[in-house]
Formats: sequence, C-alpha cells, structure tokens
Amino acid sequence: MYRALRLVARPRRLFRAPGAASAPDSCGAAALPCRPSSAARMIPVIKAFGILKRAAAEVNQDYGLDPKIANAIMKAADEVAEGKLNEHFPLVVWQTGSGTQTNMNVNEVISNRAIEMLGGELGSKKPVHPNDHVNKSQSSNDTFPTAMHIAAAIEVHEVLLPGLQKLHDALDAKSKEFAQIIKIGRTHTQDAVPLTLGQEFSGYVQQVKYATTRIQAAMPRIYELAAGGTAVGTGLNTRIGFAEKVAAKVAALTGLPFVTAPNKFEALAAHDALVELSGAMNTTACSLMKIANDIRFLGSGPRSGLGELILPENEPGSSIMPGKVNPTQCEAMTMVAAQVMGNHVAVTVGGSNGHFELNVFKPMMIKNVLHSARLLGDAAVSFTENCVVGIQANTERISKLMSESLMLVTALNPHIGYDKAAKIAKTAHKNGSTLKATAVELGYLTAEQFDEWVKPKDMLGPQ
Amino acid sequence: MYRALRLVARPRRLFRAPGAASAPDSCGAAALPCRPSSAARMIPVIKAFGILKRAAAEVNQDYGLDPKIANAIMKAADEVAEGKLNEHFPLVVWQTGSGTQTNMNVNEVISNRAIEMLGGELGSKKPVHPNDHVNKSQSSNDTFPTAMHIAAAIEVHEVLLPGLQKLHDALDAKSKEFAQIIKIGRTHTQDAVPLTLGQEFSGYVQQVKYATTRIQAAMPRIYELAAGGTAVGTGLNTRIGFAEKVAAKVAALTGLPFVTAPNKFEALAAHDALVELSGAMNTTACSLMKIANDIRFLGSGPRSGLGELILPENEPGSSIMPGKVNPTQCEAMTMVAAQVMGNHVAVTVGGSNGHFELNVFKPMMIKNVLHSARLLGDAAVSFTENCVVGIQANTERISKLMSESLMLVTALNPHIGYDKAAKIAKTAHKNGSTLKATAVELGYLTAEQFDEWVKPKDMLGPQ
Amino acid sequence: MYRALRLVARPRRLFRAPGAASAPDSCGAAALPCRPSSAARMIPVIKAFGILKRAAAEVNQDYGLDPKIANAIMKAADEVAEGKLNEHFPLVVWQTGSGTQTNMNVNEVISNRAIEMLGGELGSKKPVHPNDHVNKSQSSNDTFPTAMHIAAAIEVHEVLLPGLQKLHDALDAKSKEFAQIIKIGRTHTQDAVPLTLGQEFSGYVQQVKYATTRIQAAMPRIYELAAGGTAVGTGLNTRIGFAEKVAAKVAALTGLPFVTAPNKFEALAAHDALVELSGAMNTTACSLMKIANDIRFLGSGPRSGLGELILPENEPGSSIMPGKVNPTQCEAMTMVAAQVMGNHVAVTVGGSNGHFELNVFKPMMIKNVLHSARLLGDAAVSFTENCVVGIQANTERISKLMSESLMLVTALNPHIGYDKAAKIAKTAHKNGSTLKATAVELGYLTAEQFDEWVKPKDMLGPQ
Amino acid sequence: MYRALRLVARPRRLFRAPGAASAPDSCGAAALPCRPSSAARMIPVIKAFGILKRAAAEVNQDYGLDPKIANAIMKAADEVAEGKLNEHFPLVVWQTGSGTQTNMNVNEVISNRAIEMLGGELGSKKPVHPNDHVNKSQSSNDTFPTAMHIAAAIEVHEVLLPGLQKLHDALDAKSKEFAQIIKIGRTHTQDAVPLTLGQEFSGYVQQVKYATTRIQAAMPRIYELAAGGTAVGTGLNTRIGFAEKVAAKVAALTGLPFVTAPNKFEALAAHDALVELSGAMNTTACSLMKIANDIRFLGSGPRSGLGELILPENEPGSSIMPGKVNPTQCEAMTMVAAQVMGNHVAVTVGGSNGHFELNVFKPMMIKNVLHSARLLGDAAVSFTENCVVGIQANTERISKLMSESLMLVTALNPHIGYDKAAKIAKTAHKNGSTLKATAVELGYLTAEQFDEWVKPKDMLGPQ
Repeated sequence: MYRALRLVARPRRLFRAPGAASAPDSCGAAALPCRPSSAARMIPVIKAFGILKRAAAEVNQDYGLDPKIANAIMKAADEVAEGKLNEHFPLVVWQTGSGTQTNMNVNEVISNRAIEMLGGELGSKKPVHPNDHVNKSQSSNDTFPTAMHIAAAIEVHEVLLPGLQKLHDALDAKSKEFAQIIKIGRTHTQDAVPLTLGQEFSGYVQQVKYATTRIQAAMPRIYELAAGGTAVGTGLNTRIGFAEKVAAKVAALTGLPFVTAPNKFEALAAHDALVELSGAMNTTACSLMKIANDIRFLGSGPRSGLGELILPENEPGSSIMPGKVNPTQCEAMTMVAAQVMGNHVAVTVGGSNGHFELNVFKPMMIKNVLHSARLLGDAAVSFTENCVVGIQANTERISKLMSESLMLVTALNPHIGYDKAAKIAKTAHKNGSTLKATAVELGYLTAEQFDEWVKPKDMLGPQ
Repeated sequence: MYRALRLVARPRRLFRAPGAASAPDSCGAAALPCRPSSAARMIPVIKAFGILKRAAAEVNQDYGLDPKIANAIMKAADEVAEGKLNEHFPLVVWQTGSGTQTNMNVNEVISNRAIEMLGGELGSKKPVHPNDHVNKSQSSNDTFPTAMHIAAAIEVHEVLLPGLQKLHDALDAKSKEFAQIIKIGRTHTQDAVPLTLGQEFSGYVQQVKYATTRIQAAMPRIYELAAGGTAVGTGLNTRIGFAEKVAAKVAALTGLPFVTAPNKFEALAAHDALVELSGAMNTTACSLMKIANDIRFLGSGPRSGLGELILPENEPGSSIMPGKVNPTQCEAMTMVAAQVMGNHVAVTVGGSNGHFELNVFKPMMIKNVLHSARLLGDAAVSFTENCVVGIQANTERISKLMSESLMLVTALNPHIGYDKAAKIAKTAHKNGSTLKATAVELGYLTAEQFDEWVKPKDMLGPQ
Repeated sequence: MYRALRLVARPRRLFRAPGAASAPDSCGAAALPCRPSSAARMIPVIKAFGILKRAAAEVNQDYGLDPKIANAIMKAADEVAEGKLNEHFPLVVWQTGSGTQTNMNVNEVISNRAIEMLGGELGSKKPVHPNDHVNKSQSSNDTFPTAMHIAAAIEVHEVLLPGLQKLHDALDAKSKEFAQIIKIGRTHTQDAVPLTLGQEFSGYVQQVKYATTRIQAAMPRIYELAAGGTAVGTGLNTRIGFAEKVAAKVAALTGLPFVTAPNKFEALAAHDALVELSGAMNTTACSLMKIANDIRFLGSGPRSGLGELILPENEPGSSIMPGKVNPTQCEAMTMVAAQVMGNHVAVTVGGSNGHFELNVFKPMMIKNVLHSARLLGDAAVSFTENCVVGIQANTERISKLMSESLMLVTALNPHIGYDKAAKIAKTAHKNGSTLKATAVELGYLTAEQFDEWVKPKDMLGPQ
Repeated sequence: MYRALRLVARPRRLFRAPGAASAPDSCGAAALPCRPSSAARMIPVIKAFGILKRAAAEVNQDYGLDPKIANAIMKAADEVAEGKLNEHFPLVVWQTGSGTQTNMNVNEVISNRAIEMLGGELGSKKPVHPNDHVNKSQSSNDTFPTAMHIAAAIEVHEVLLPGLQKLHDALDAKSKEFAQIIKIGRTHTQDAVPLTLGQEFSGYVQQVKYATTRIQAAMPRIYELAAGGTAVGTGLNTRIGFAEKVAAKVAALTGLPFVTAPNKFEALAAHDALVELSGAMNTTACSLMKIANDIRFLGSGPRSGLGELILPENEPGSSIMPGKVNPTQCEAMTMVAAQVMGNHVAVTVGGSNGHFELNVFKPMMIKNVLHSARLLGDAAVSFTENCVVGIQANTERISKLMSESLMLVTALNPHIGYDKAAKIAKTAHKNGSTLKATAVELGYLTAEQFDEWVKPKDMLGPQ
C-alpha cells in the first residue's frame, strides 16, 4: 500500500531521500537497514495535516465541492489524523523549508486513499485530485504553518502541560509532607539561615506552576491559524469566510480554541509564535535544571555529600563502584534541559531568517518545538514517577547540620547588632566551637538569652 | 564627596576594582584614564535601589523606625533614585553573584548622605547605620532581585515599549500609505503571486504589535517583588505585612503595578522571570531582524537589486564607491537583534545555574536584560526616525516587475486547472515570452479570457 | 535473541524505557507501534564501544586474561562494531548522564554473545562475566568517553570531512568554470564594483577549505582516549601500560591516530574536546549558511529577483504556483546550519555543567555532536549533488546588470578624485542616465577618457 | 581639538549619536551627562586602525606617495595607535555594519592631525586628504576587517593568553602542593573512589592548558589580514604587492605573525575566523565554569557543605548573615563564563548572516569577541590572585570524609568480585556501619585481608 498512496509527488532529489541507505536524523553509520524516525518524519505534523485537510474538505463542501469527493477526503484525512497511514509519509525534516513536499505528500496520500475508497485507480488523480480537490483553497504556504500550530498545540496539551502538572503536584505534595522539617539554608552554596524543607520545595512548586503559566501565555498566538492565506497571505483562490470556517472546524475537531490569524502575511512570513513558545519552554528548561540540580546536590552522598535527601534507587549506578546509587533521573532531566536550550537557539535562528512573504525554516522550527515539548513533558513524568514521589528526607542528617550551623547567629542581629553577631560567628568558626559558648565567652549575652533568642523555629518567617 | 559617601564597605578585592587602570566592560586597552561605563555599573539598578530603599524606610517608620532617621534615609534614597549620587557607585557587574556588594554600597552611600544631611560625621554610622537602619528588614538577597525587577520594569516601560510603539505606528502608517500599490510577492526568495506593498508592511505591523503583546505577557512575573524575603526567602527579621507594604509603596512611587512575590523562595533562588522577559525580547529580535532584512533587500540596488523601496540617505556609504547609499539603519538593527539573541543565551545560562536558596548570576542577568531592553528600544526609535518614516515606494520599478511576472498564472488555476497553468508558466519561462502570448499559443484560452481572468487587483484577497 | 543478549542489566526505570509506547526522540504521538530511532540510541557510540571492548580484551589477554574468554569477547565485540547486534541496544540518550547503562548494556550483550558462541547458558555470566571479564580494567566512566571520542572521530572522518571535501571540490570547479564572467559586486546588499563570478565562488571555496582546517584543528583532543582512567581518572584496577596499549589498539583498529589522554581526570570530568569540535562545526554552519544564502539570492527570480544564477530544478516547487522552482537545497542547508548552531548551544551547556570527577551530560553531548557531524556531512553531499554541480551562470542577465551599474565610477577615482566621481554617480542615479553621458555632461572628462578608464576587466585586481 | 579633528565626516544620523542624551551601550537612564564607553566605541579597534594606517602610509610611500604627506600620516597614525586621540572617536558599535563610519572617522582624524602638524587648516583636506591620501589603496571594506583582526590578536596576546597562563601556573602550583592529600572522589555528585587533591587539580590544569592550545589553534586565521582587498576583495585601486607589504609592516609593528589573507573575497564577505576564535573562547568559558563550580562546591560550608577547600576571604559576604564568607571570585568567573557563551551566540548569528561581498555585522562581531577576550583574561587574573593562590586544603575534613567512605570497597573487586563487593557496600550503607566490620560479618574476608587490600594510597593509579 505504501508506494501506491504516495505514488505521484515523491520529490526526486530529497535530501537523504527515502530509499537511501540512511537518513541523517536517525541512522548514523548503521549497518542494518533503517528508516527515518517518526520524529524526523514530523509525525505529529502529519497528523495535524489530517485534521486540517478534513476541516478544509468540510468547508469546501459548504462552498460547493461535490459531497462524494468531500466525504472521501474527510474519511481519508481522518485516517491520516489517526496515524493509520504514517507509513506513507517518509519525508524528513531536511527538505524544502516551506514544507511543500510534505503538503504534496499529504495531498497525494489522501487523494489516493480516497480514490481507493471510491474504487478508483491509484495515481489516476480521479475522481479525487490531490491539488484541485484535496488542496482546494489551500497552499503549502498556509497549510504547513497551520499544521505546525495544530501539532504544537496538541503536543503542548497532550504531553507538555500534563507532564508539568504531574510534576507540580508531586512537588507540592512533597512540600506539604516536608512542612515541619527545619533545615539549614544555603546561599552562595554556603551555609545560611534556616528554612523548612517544605519551604525549599515550595520554591520548586512555584517554578513549575509558572512554567505552565508561561506556556499558556504563549498559546494565544499558537491558536492562530494561517489557513486561508494561501500562497502569500492574500487568500487568493479562497472564498470569503473560508479562513474563519476552517479555523472553527479545527477548533471543533481538536477541542482547542483555534482562530483564524488576524494577519495572514505575518502568519506565513514569520514564525514568531513558535519562537515565543520555544522561549517559554526555554524558561521551563531553566526551572527544571535548577530543580534537578538542587535535588541531586541535596541527595549527594551517601557519606561525603550534603545528604539531606534520600533519592530512590532505580538501577545499579556503576560498573566498578558497588553500592553506589546515582541521581540518574536528575541527570536525564538536566540533559533534557540543555537540549531544550539548544533547540531554542535553532528555533531562534530559523525564526529570524525569514525573507519576504515566506519563512523557509518551517520543518526545522517545528521539529525543534515538538522535540522540546515532548522531551520536557516526558522528562517531567519520568522525573516525577521515578524520583520525586520517592524522595525521602534524611531527617537525622538534616537535624545534625542545622544544629551545628553558625548562621543561626543571625537571630541575634536584632538583639546585639550586626557587628557583635558577626564577631561571635567568626570566633566560633575560628575555634571550631559552638555559637552559644562563644557568645557567652565574649560576654555579649547570657546562656539563657541565647536559648531564648536563637530558636530555629522562630526564624522561618516574619514576626 | 565621592570617597566619603562610600567609604566603609568598599570591597577590597573586587574584580577589576575601581582604581585599577581599566575595567573589563568599558575600557579596552585604553591609554587614557577611564572608568567603568554606566552600563557596567548597572546604573538603572542603582536607581531602582533608591526607590526600594525609600519605600523600605517609609514602611520601617510605620513599624517604629525613628522618623528622623527614616526621613533622612528617604531623602538620601530619593537622590539615589534621581541619579544624583551615581558617581558614588563604582562597582561593576563582575562582582559577587548576589549583588551583595552593590546593596552594601547603596546602604553606605545612603547612610553617609543621610548622616551628612543630619550634620553627622561621615563613616561614623551614626545616627544612620547602613545595616541596622538603611538595610532594616532587608538582605542583599531580597533587595537585589527587587531592584532588578524594578529596573527591568522601568526600562521596559520607559524605553522598550515606547520604542516599539513608535516603530509600530510608523510601519502602520506606511502600510496604509502603500495600500494601493500592487507588487510581486516573493516566497522561497522566488517570484510569487502579487500582494500590495501595504499588505506586506501589515505583516511587519503585526509582528511589532505582537512584540509588545509578548513583552507585556511577561511583565506580571516581573512585577513580583522579592522584598520581604530577606536572606533565604523566609522573611526572617521582617515584620508581618512588611513585604506587602513595600511592594505597595514601590508601586505608588513608580506608577507600575508591583506586588509582593507570592513565593519568596522562588524569587531569590531563581530568576525565571528575567529569562522569560529575555525570551520575549529574543522573539522581538527575531521579528525586527526579519523586518530589517526585508527592507534592506527590497531597497537593494540602485540598479542591480530588487529596488522596490527607496530608503532614506543618512550618510556617505562608502569611502571608495561614490554615490552609494547603504541601508545602515537596517544594519544597526540586525546587529542589535544578533546581540539580543546572544544576551538571551547569557541570561538563560545564568538562569539555569542557580543553586539552593540563591541564584548567584544576578548582576550578569540583569545587565543583559537591561542591555537588550535598551538596545531594542533605542534601535526601534532610530530605525523609525532615520529609516521607516522616510521609506518611499519605487512605484515604477514595482509595476515593471509585477507586469513581467510569471506567477500571475496562478489566477488561471480555477479556470484551466493546475497542470495546464504550470505548462503555460514553464513554457513562457523557457521562451522568455509573456504569459498571455504563451497561453494563447498553447491554445488553453483566448486573449480575452486571459485579460478577464488575470487581474492582479483581483488576486489580493479571497472572493 | 534480543532479550537474551541484554537480559541482565536492563535498567528498570529508564526514561521512556524500551517497551513503552513511544520514545521521546523518535515517535511523537504515533499511533503505530514504534521504537527509538538509531540516533536516539546513539548507534555510532555502540559501534565505537565494540571497537573499544575488542581492544580492551586484546590488552587484557596480554595481561593474563584467559585467551579463550578474551577471544570470545573479541569476536562478540567485533559483531557489535559491525552493527550486527544493533537490535540489542534499545537504550536512549535520556538515561544516566555517564552512559553507565549503555556500558552495562554493551558488557552484557558481549558477555551473552560470547557465552552463546562458547555454548554456555545466556544470563549465566559464565564463562564470560560482563563485569569481571568484558569490563575488565574499565569503568563506565572511562569507557563511555572513550567511545564518544571514537564515534566522533569516525563520524568526522567518514561523513563530515568527505562531505565537505566534495562540496569544496564542486565549488572550486565552479569557481574555475566561472573565472571569466565579470559581474556586479554587492556590498551592504547594494551595488558595488565588479568582480568575476569565479572570484565570488572562490570565497566560498576558501570558507569550505577552512571548515576542514578548523575541524582538523580540533581533532587532536578528540584523538585522546580516556580508557585507562577507570572510575575517577586514577586508573584504579588497571595495570600500568593498559591505557597506552588500549589506545594503540584502537588506533590500529580504526586507522586513526588515537592516543591515551595525557590527563585522565580531565578526560572524565570535562568534555571540552567535544565543545571544541562542536564549535568547529558551528563555524562551519556559519560558512554554509552564508554560501547557501548567497546562492539562493543570486538565483532568485525567475523575473523579479537577482537572477544571476540558474539553479537546478529538483522538484515541483509549489502546490499553487505552477512553474515555480525553489532553492530547496539551499533551504535544507540553511535549516541544517540553524540546527547545528542550536546543537552547539546544547553541547556548550552540557560541557559547562560537569561537576567534580565526572561530567554527566555525556549522552546528550555526543548525540548532538554526532547529529551535527552527520547533518553537515550529509547536507554538504546533497547540496553538492543536487545544487552546486548543476548551477549555471545566467550570463545574459549578469552582463546586463553589470553594464548598467553606477559603481563602475570607482574606476575614475584615481583619475579625477573621489569627490568628482561621487558627483557623477549621484547625478546619473538622479537622472536615470548612464555614467558616461553624465561624466561628459559634467565636463569632468571626455568620452574617450571614460572608455579608456572604465574597463570592468581592469577592475578585477591590483595593478 | 575634538571637534576639529573629526569635523568632516561625522555621520549625520548615527544610531544614538554622540550628543544625544545617552548611548545604548553605556548610559542607561542616567541623569548625569554621559558618553559612550570605550568598549562601545571599540577603542582597541581604533588603535588597530592606527597601526594599519601607519603601515599603509609606509607602503604607499614605497609606491610613490609624497614622503612629506606619508610621514605626517604615519605620525598621526602613531598617535591613534597609542590612544592619544581616543577622544576623537565617538562612534559606537551600532552604526553601519561595515564599520565604514569608523574608517571615515579615522581617515579624517589622521588627515586633520597631519594637517595640523604640517601647519595647514583643519578641515581643508589639504595637504593631507582623508580619502585620497590616508585611505589610499584602501576601502572601509578591507580596512575594518583588518583592524578587527589586529585588535583581536592584540587583545588575545596582551590580555587573554597571559591571564590564562597565570591561572594555569597557579593551578599547577596548587596541584603540586596538594599532591599527597588523598581525598574521596565524586562522580554523579556521589561518593566515589579516592584520588589526590593534586590529581583533581591536575584536571583543571589540563583544561586551562588546552584552553590556550585552542585559542592558539584559532589564531592562524586571525593573523590573515584583508588589507589589499579594497571594496569587494579584488584589490581594485591597489598595486600588486600592496597587500603583502602592508601585512608585513603590520607584523613588524606588532611583533605578531600577520600575513595577507590568501583569499580577500572570503576575508570581507565572511568572518568565520572571528566565529572560530569566539568558539575557542566559548570552550574556555565551559572549562572555567567547570573549575569555578568545583571550587565553590568543594569550598562550601563552613559546616554544612563539602568543606574540603578553604577559600580566601575577600569581602564581607552578607549584609544579614555575619561571619559568612562567599566564593565571590567563583561567582564572578561563572558569570563571565555565561556572558562569553552569550557573546558567542551573538557572534555566530552575525557570522552566519553575511551576504554577497560583505558581511555587515562587523562592529557587533568584533565588540563581542573583544569583550569575551578581555572578560576571560581579566577574570582569569582576578580569580587567580584573589582565589586560587589562597586556596588551602582542609586536610582534617578531607581525611574524615575519606575514611568514612563506602567507595573504598572498590578495592575489593579484584579479590572477591563485583557482586560480593557490592553486597558489602550496600549492607554497610543500610546499617550505617563500616566496610570492614560489614565485610568480616558477611564472612567474605578477614580483618587482616581488609587492611591489606583496602589501602587508599594504593588506589591512586594503575599497578
């Protein structure tokens, strides 16, 4: 079936064309036969195309397209949207920068599948013509960006936001679980005044909460669809109302608030909306790297690290050092964060290099956006399930560090002033003695005053 | 006066300390004596500190600080906010990552200036102590991020958004001015179907409009102030209500909707809000690079380029080629865009590397955010005034290109179908002939039909 | 066979583990069952592991390992190196940051395959133990970076450098082919003094030549192998001489000048060598983006662009605009360039975040380095074959533009001075007249002098 | 004198022109009057121009320029090279992308200063004409890139390499000083087998050594000068041999091995050499961030961190926490590293966006390259002087951590095998007991065997 459905428009000289020994995004110097990966083939974009082509066929029928043809297109497009015809989409990212070949591939597959359903001859373009019918009122130039936006929105809603929500909830539960555990704070990686472990985790909760806020703040521009702009944004060869109706249909099919882009010239010539969404994911990557770094350092040990957290063991950590348990989930997460930052630069460079009526970095841009969304969403889930939910506080260790801390001296500031407090801390540090003994020895206060004034529990908030 | 006001807390071993022959951010291998630039000294942050210290003194007075002292602090802080004491702030970006030295510098300058006003002895810490009074209920750890947010918000409102608005309005005016000029479109840098020059510019208008939208979407997190979190976010040594009141005072002083950050741990340990704002500016940089690139290519020539636009002459363009006029404003703008993309990566790297209760890339992050805001704002104004408002359409050239175009053939698609239309275009291209002659010659239609069907004016929108 | 060979050490909680519905790097929201791509599974690294394990077994035999066992390991390792066992390596990039799981996977597959060859029971660890024999004198911490370097070096030599060489040669041939075609130069995207099309292409040739130079300049550090450092770089549990001998064996097996790293602590804890190589590829990406951009702009048209080059037609360019031929190879190349720039930032972020004795961004870093090497190499080949070799000069158009140019006036500078020459050019531009007529009209020279002094052929070099 | 010397060619509409209230790169919203910083004015480039103009005058004299004029130009150019006329160069980075205005500024200042020396009238262009004499055989298009390369090479040799050398030597001294201190290793931020502190530092030494190697590897392309290419690279209006002679003069004047660029088209149209050098500095930034991160984590405490290093106290660390000493030099260094990574992206974006015969991101590119070189060089010196040389090992703490470590169990691998060793470590970890007691209890070996086999001193290298 494969060859049949995409018989006609397969580009003859595709960069690492299907049929070549290997494809750049997937195979390396593989000896085994291989094919481009789903990611390299932008499968979510293909599925989004299915949704779009279905919507367009419906609207075209309203404007007079033969219902028999429209109906066959819709059915075939649904199969594309459901991923049933994925095998017929061999094209990789590294093609024309408009995604034209992908749109043609979609048109042909749908045309041929519709012809097949209607009992026609594959490749005959009859009765369902790939251009005149499937692509009616459309151009690669408006369909590809439309599919990009649909795919990005779906990936954000199905993978990224649920992943972040799951992580948020798990961190929030930990923050509450750890609400009563008082620990030493650390600033400049140095000892500082105390806080609760719950408070520390509440900062992570806030970061992840805002990650969601940031991504949602970028979505209104993603919900804008270029469909109806056709070749250069004018809407040539469409009908008045077509753009609005297609957007409404796509919204109905996906349950997402898609609308027609207010300016189609911008929607074809620039992909600022993808740069924006990528930027929100870049910020999310910063947040997650911070959180994962903290957790691995707080869980460092078992005996020569900070040791405040006990991380779940997931796998043997070392081939030479038995007994070692490594923060592998933190490592996967920080690698993902670095990748997302890199992807963001690729998207930025692509987004800045559009010319005239068309940005021609489309496939590369959407690939990176989808990659980032999926990586962050998947990593958030994995990190949650295999790390966060299993984190335990090493309360014994936490208590020990806290009670030894010199930074509790800060509690004396309001009572004896900054300079004397500093003297106590420095002296105790120098002598390896306790704050209390030093303070009394220096004659700044009595032992009773120390006990009354230095209470970690009282240092956790304003008075 | 200089040495007097900052006598006490000058760090002894500052990276490229004041007094050294040169400072890294400003002087190069200069032979002349030089001092760090205002940017390297983060002057907008210093001024924001003035606002914060004033607000804190007011609130501290509410909580019992001696009104005489509070009042003197307020007056001195106002002078800092007004930039009157700029000379007393020699510290550069490359100091401690918390900005502690800057906060101490501010405390001492205000203390000494207040002492001076009250007739005391400079450096005596009496009657206004830099730590006990000026820094009361505060820490470097919450004041520096507060000042960062205040400075960023002011720069956005005073420089960036007005600059973008000015550019938007100028492009919008051009879009309307050019509404009737029909021109050839270009996709893939190749000839495409027509649009109006006004439509083309409307895409730029939309990009700049959304730049503003994006920046504004990032501001709610910028309006959140860390003040009240003190050392690690708990609010130790503050009073209940202090945080909220300080934010309200800052809001009143600046006219911007500042609020207290809902989670102070996040506000000290992470600067995701700055990464987010930088991301919005990164997207803006992409937009402006696209626009500036288009304008310089459309204005290329005078005789061997596209030549559709006539750009204003601002300066002699070449030392060897007389008569040449270069798109210097476009070049400045695209250089600025590249710089903002680079700044964004610096901010991202800094933002991802916070540890525990404190991110210690603060001065570097805010320097880059302020740099980007100012560069984009200034460049938008310069580009508007020296380029956009003076752009003229070369209507003669535009008409010529349009009438010669092969892409008008698209108008025939609905009448004779894609395949025949393609045949006409290819044949005309091969023979160097006109579409009309070729179409008739191929027998696909009559000359009358051609004239009726191929009307550029009818190709500018849906029907 | 799959499960059998990698029975033992499969991590239980891998991020997007094999067996899950999809893997982040490969499958998207695919409906079809799918598996991680070869790239996500770092197949070139697996093959490099085969080479390393074979070398280590040989050296271990020298140091006393039972030859029967050593021999079986060597044979099994050869199969890994040849890609015959690829199916047994399901692990993706997003695992532990040291690649430990991959090393364990390799040890087990080789152990089991060797056991199989020797007629033993799979999973019994007898007579070939994955840790005690296959991993003898090794640790994940030194084998993974060794495999990274081997894989990177092979990819550079097999894909990247040959691709660049091919591109260089094709551009060089074009430069010679076009040596006599005089054309208008363009600076600031504006008309400038003439050069030959061959000279213009010679700049591209130089860029690609230096791309090779730059990549080769980075290789000496890539040729340094960490093997022998074991867990933290000390070489614990190895024998004196092991490191040097393994490097020599790997060099012999690959034909590349690998040596043992002079400092194993650096070789495990930092991957500066990969950042460096990535940086060389980043520079290459800049070069290729410049070249591809030039070629698409010079080939823009067919009638409203610069039109100096005729690019080969590879595929139908548009679904709505018949007759249009797009510079798709240039677009693929510039997308690749943007991707490589993004990959470079990912590698940079990973490279800067190592801690203590081990950098744990290894899989992510090598994935991006290999991706960039392959993309650039493949893109160079595709761009060469499908674009460069077929480029034709549009000599008619080139001549026309050249003869109309105002910039030929520069030739008058030495004769009449800068100011008069400028006057001529500006006047001609204003009046739409020719330089010659204007010059004579202004009385600065005679028509004969003009013809004698303004000879494009004489403007192509120093005198 | 200021206005006089640069009277003629001051561009009328410079982006943030001198005289405006503020300049984007330097002044912020400053209330005080301010002027662009030396960095924004690219002072090292100006000085490099002085060297170039002097060299060109010498060569022009060889080719017939009136010795009186040539001599005056040389003297005036020397003053520019010495920085004596810095005040006459107000132009900022954000000008035309070719740096044309800067070249004109230089020509005029030299012309006027030479006229002044010869007793002529300022602005008269007599007897020394800025274009016809000072700029003879030159163009902005070849002089600016020449000055960029000269400035970059000087900055690398005067600031960057000496700074790195100093850091290298200090780290190397520490590595030797710490050669006998055995400590716990850390991989995955978790406890690992031991190494010496000297070995750990030797990794840093190697990184810095290679930083120098990498930068030097990039220099051959920097030593290539564009001079002689004039407007588009052809060398129009120069004499045969001019390019080679100028390069030789510049080499003689600077003592650096400058040569004429083998291909002037590449030298004007692309700045790959700067991207390459920036890439080497980007790698250096990764190295320095790694080192600074390690040092601050190893020095974390005083009581709740790793505490293995004692860092020198440079300044009071906190305004609220007395006694706290922060790793401010590490923080400055990591901020610098982040900035350099950002600068590198700016350079990359600029480098990739050249068009046709001229890259017009020149001022922005060189500004970032010089900024990175100076920041890294200065930071290396400051970090060395104020941190590295004062680092002390906390031998007591190091010993304690080492003796408690579970990872010494690795020493048992060769004796009892991986699985049993792992069992010991896990059991000891679970029970909080020592390795020795656990090993004996499990019956795997005797106490004597343990003492004989587990000797940290024997775990520091191969046997």
